[in-house]
Amino acid sequence: MRTRTTKRNLPLGSVYRLLEPGPVVLLTTARAGRANVMPMSWHTMMEFEPPLVGCVVSDRNYSFQALKRTKECVLNIPTATLIEAAVACGNTSGRTVDKFAAFGLTPLSARRVEPPLIAECPVNLECVVVDTRLVSKYCLFVLQVLKAWRDPRPARLQTFHHLGEGHFMIAGRRRTLASRAK
Amino acid sequence: MRTRTTKRNLPLGSVYRLLEPGPVVLLTTARAGRANVMPMSWHTMMEFEPPLVGCVVSDRNYSFQALKRTKECVLNIPTATLIEAAVACGNTSGRTVDKFAAFGLTPLSARRVEPPLIAECPVNLECVVVDTRLVSKYCLFVLQVLKAWRDPRPARLQTFHHLGEGHFMIAGRRRTLASRAK
Repeated sequence: MRTRTTKRNLPLGSVYRLLEPGPVVLLTTARAGRANVMPMSWHTMMEFEPPLVGCVVSDRNYSFQALKRTKECVLNIPTATLIEAAVACGNTSGRTVDKFAAFGLTPLSARRVEPPLIAECPVNLECVVVDTRLVSKYCLFVLQVLKAWRDPRPARLQTFHHLGEGHFMIAGRRRTLASRAK
Repeated sequence: MRTRTTKRNLPLGSVYRLLEPGPVVLLTTARAGRANVMPMSWHTMMEFEPPLVGCVVSDRNYSFQALKRTKECVLNIPTATLIEAAVACGNTSGRTVDKFAAFGLTPLSARRVEPPLIAECPVNLECVVVDTRLVSKYCLFVLQVLKAWRDPRPARLQTFHHLGEGHFMIAGRRRTLASRAK
């Protein structure tokens, strides 16, 4: 029996603020009672509310079949202290490794979907697949976020962003300008 | 007559390294001899090579019709010195403002498409629309990058990333780990 999260509800209309800057996310899936996790950078917001997210999961990844068949996943946003764990998840396959156990990640019960939240990630987004039209050609899934969780600490997320081949950019300072944009 | 760029060719297989971390990009379009520019954060890589990019351009934006009808655009990646210009582009509409003239941006001739490169942006990606299946429902265009330009300076791009409502994260320090990922 998995433990429940103690994180707080994040309003669905605020999800875009976290995914729009392009952080590496950890995608969790579950199939036949077995959970898996993979790092992913190919995602984009597609709608504010309800939040829709487009994401590309290669059919060479073990997670592809789980996502395609179960139509459920969780997008977990890690911060810079988890960069080694994220890379380790990318260097191994769920076919042979229980990545949660191997890399010190704690699965927690989600509320709306079967795949687990990752306790160590301050943000967890419970998602279902709502459009598969571009899956066969591009491996692009359209996800809808049903429920979002946010640990109030840290107030500012030091996300990390993949630059290819193991190079990462860590989120730096902030600037605020008067904008009409949402 | 527009001037040509002096930037260097960027191999198409390297494009993902620049878009994957999620920078704000400036999208240029052209229609009836008139160029326009808008900031955009809702984009994702979809394939390495030839590089495919999914991007959402709202049908409330003036650029939507130009992109839909001409099927051409340029994705220009600005660095932190251009943050004010990017926000100014987002706060105005191409319906009424020539944003190049108004915000000090210099249009240069592209090689493969009609919309201009922005001289002040160190990276310019000339694109055509290759799939419109998700345009009517989600305003999602699939772009193929035909030609990519990169100013060798600066060697490291200090991109900026939108966090919503005029808040931005500026690219910070880097870390490199041994990764099997591309």
